[in-house]
Amino acid sequence: MVARTRRPSVRPFLSNSAAFAAGEDTPRAFLERCLAAFDVWEPEIGAFVTTDLAAARAAADAATVRWRGGKPLSAIDGMPIGIKDIIETADMPTEMGSPLFAGWRSGWDAASVAALREAGAVIVGKTVTTEFAATQPRGTRNPHDVTRTPGGSSSGSAAAVGAGVISAGLGTQVIGSIVRPASFCGCVGFKPSVGAINRGGSLDYLSQSVTGVLAATVEDAWQVGIEIATRVGGDPGHLQLDGPLHPPAAAKPRKLALIETAGWQVASAEAKAALQETAEKLGTLGIEFITRSSHREVEAVEDAIADAFALSTRINDWEWRWPLNSFHERDASKLSRIMLDRIARQQAMGPDDYRDALAERARARSLYAKLAAICDGCLTLTAPGAAPVSLRTTGNPIFAVPFSLLGVPAISLPLLEEHGLPLGLQLAGFAGGDAAAIATARWLMQTLGDVE
Amino acid sequence: MVARTRRPSVRPFLSNSAAFAAGEDTPRAFLERCLAAFDVWEPEIGAFVTTDLAAARAAADAATVRWRGGKPLSAIDGMPIGIKDIIETADMPTEMGSPLFAGWRSGWDAASVAALREAGAVIVGKTVTTEFAATQPRGTRNPHDVTRTPGGSSSGSAAAVGAGVISAGLGTQVIGSIVRPASFCGCVGFKPSVGAINRGGSLDYLSQSVTGVLAATVEDAWQVGIEIATRVGGDPGHLQLDGPLHPPAAAKPRKLALIETAGWQVASAEAKAALQETAEKLGTLGIEFITRSSHREVEAVEDAIADAFALSTRINDWEWRWPLNSFHERDASKLSRIMLDRIARQQAMGPDDYRDALAERARARSLYAKLAAICDGCLTLTAPGAAPVSLRTTGNPIFAVPFSLLGVPAISLPLLEEHGLPLGLQLAGFAGGDAAAIATARWLMQTLGDVE
Repeated sequence: MVARTRRPSVRPFLSNSAAFAAGEDTPRAFLERCLAAFDVWEPEIGAFVTTDLAAARAAADAATVRWRGGKPLSAIDGMPIGIKDIIETADMPTEMGSPLFAGWRSGWDAASVAALREAGAVIVGKTVTTEFAATQPRGTRNPHDVTRTPGGSSSGSAAAVGAGVISAGLGTQVIGSIVRPASFCGCVGFKPSVGAINRGGSLDYLSQSVTGVLAATVEDAWQVGIEIATRVGGDPGHLQLDGPLHPPAAAKPRKLALIETAGWQVASAEAKAALQETAEKLGTLGIEFITRSSHREVEAVEDAIADAFALSTRINDWEWRWPLNSFHERDASKLSRIMLDRIARQQAMGPDDYRDALAERARARSLYAKLAAICDGCLTLTAPGAAPVSLRTTGNPIFAVPFSLLGVPAISLPLLEEHGLPLGLQLAGFAGGDAAAIATARWLMQTLGDVE
Repeated sequence: MVARTRRPSVRPFLSNSAAFAAGEDTPRAFLERCLAAFDVWEPEIGAFVTTDLAAARAAADAATVRWRGGKPLSAIDGMPIGIKDIIETADMPTEMGSPLFAGWRSGWDAASVAALREAGAVIVGKTVTTEFAATQPRGTRNPHDVTRTPGGSSSGSAAAVGAGVISAGLGTQVIGSIVRPASFCGCVGFKPSVGAINRGGSLDYLSQSVTGVLAATVEDAWQVGIEIATRVGGDPGHLQLDGPLHPPAAAKPRKLALIETAGWQVASAEAKAALQETAEKLGTLGIEFITRSSHREVEAVEDAIADAFALSTRINDWEWRWPLNSFHERDASKLSRIMLDRIARQQAMGPDDYRDALAERARARSLYAKLAAICDGCLTLTAPGAAPVSLRTTGNPIFAVPFSLLGVPAISLPLLEEHGLPLGLQLAGFAGGDAAAIATARWLMQTLGDVE
């Protein structure tokens, strides 16, 4: 039983597998610990839209039998998982954070969900998303302080993972929707390279959007991603998440770019100090940092991503013409002001605007790709500070959006704090280099994390 | 009233607009002529899965009011259209040619359907598709000879357009699913450049698949495509169908490549002779032809597309892992032998096979793109001959698949015959050059077609 007076803590799964294999623990017992946390936390944080606890228990029992027989379906067989409610499930509604889709059922499993079921994962329920995975919040609270936002749009997955109710949750990111809530809720957020995980069956057709994982640990995050990609591939026409069927070993980076992004202007003094202290500590360990002052290649990237939010918004606005036009037709009164404003912006755009925006994005991606020759990745904050006190905003995505625009892997690591609240250290890698980024992330966690 | 003894003929819409504008004809009267053809032909050809004739009449009445008031929503306001039953509609089921989806409703309109409704098109019903828009036929017959296949996978759209029941039907093509049925049913088939028309809400996630149009005329086909693209854009991340909001003016090409493809080996003598006669006629009109014998660039393309079918199949197999895995899970007994075989092939594939296939396709596309510098397009047959006598096959796609692989616009023109049955002349253009291909197609129709 989890006492409400305890601070929230995450619940790693992969590190527990030896106990499953040895018969010292079972997926069913693991799930019951999760459900005890659910009982304590769910009334406080509202992370789920729908749950099916009976189905979850049955799935955990089946996993228990497989582990006992020495034949788990995968390394995540029995892992309690939440599915962001923008991703379709055969057995539960997919409401997309919109009253327009109350009770809506597609009747089938999205690619990622089908793969998770094949791998034996225990689907606890659908986690709250903002309206259509965009901006309008839907009431979930942050387990670290229930007066604060958990971030968005993967609000419920972040809050539930942060509170130890599930080991991992699926998320999607087109602006900052995986790494920002991970930062705010004190868990790991893994946004893979664009195209790395098949998005079929997810209301998520934007060109810089990607399915990813919020998880208790870097290892759990990788494992969920690779188990999905192995079974259903990446987006059609893209290479799937590339790497081993187990978490890549920790690897110390030699050189990292310290990126400020436009967010530096609005980051809190404490957040900036936390990043700088981290860089100094890493410097004492022999890691070299390059910056916009030291390298013109970094300066070129910083300049190219300076307007990442505006550019991403232009691209997203155009790509949202459908389905927003059909939603508007059905019942405009069920759309938020934010969505109605987006429709107004769409009307003012033409194909030439979109063509120009794609060209500008391609140029930024090309400049960023050149960094791969001179460093092992980029380090920055995930957010300008800890989660703000508000349930009406999901917080500022300004540190997350550049890497969404660039389409590269980005990982938020729960290594920093502001006023005792979680804040993510963001590591960004290079397109297709997800496994290398995970290896670096593991090293950072091992080196900088609180080792018990 | 259409007499059954008449040969089928198509029903152009755009060329009738002057009569709507002048008040000499109305969309409702036009629809009634279509529905008279429906009464005659539908029992013979089985082109529709679902119809909603009351809704169609109401939509035609609304269009009639708009034309009378001088304010049509678009050039296709009132056009009777069929929607391939792989594309989702809010008001009708989407059964995808599979017993697994009998009665299934997504509850919303696909991007193309939402756009057509905005443009005022009259949606007559859902047209028969082969199982999941792949190979297994679902009973539709060819109006030119009901013992013959209409082709697939856009079987119903082709048959209904060919019989004059609708002016246009939506189709999708990943192998040969638009141009082949157009060829067999004596209508125009327009497969745009990959990405040119938003595929959102269509069970059609394959990387070389594209939504296109089967229509009575080249002009109708273009207009439907551009009205959709203008309203909902192309696939996210791709440039939308590029060109004017009216059919591009006919333009005489200067130089065309005469492409044989692997199909030449299996084409009938009559089909080959028909193509050669056409080329000779065009030659007398001053058009220069280049071939694999005359230009090594053409030879390089012919070599690169020699295995287009096998390469496309490898790519499609991998990209079909989902949703086939979830369909199999639901009820494998409702999948055809063809789909079960595909699942077996998928199991034997790995990500490296897919990576290699994508690289091979990219190489072919790059070689083909070089032709743009030396000719205005490519001419070949659409099929090895007229529709075969069989309802168990949809015919050989061997002439269609190269241009699917290449992702370029391809247009089947009802200009050839074999044994008095329709056979398409296929014109292929260059990626993004859809409007130029349409301009050439219009010139070919005007020059070679039977002008009344």
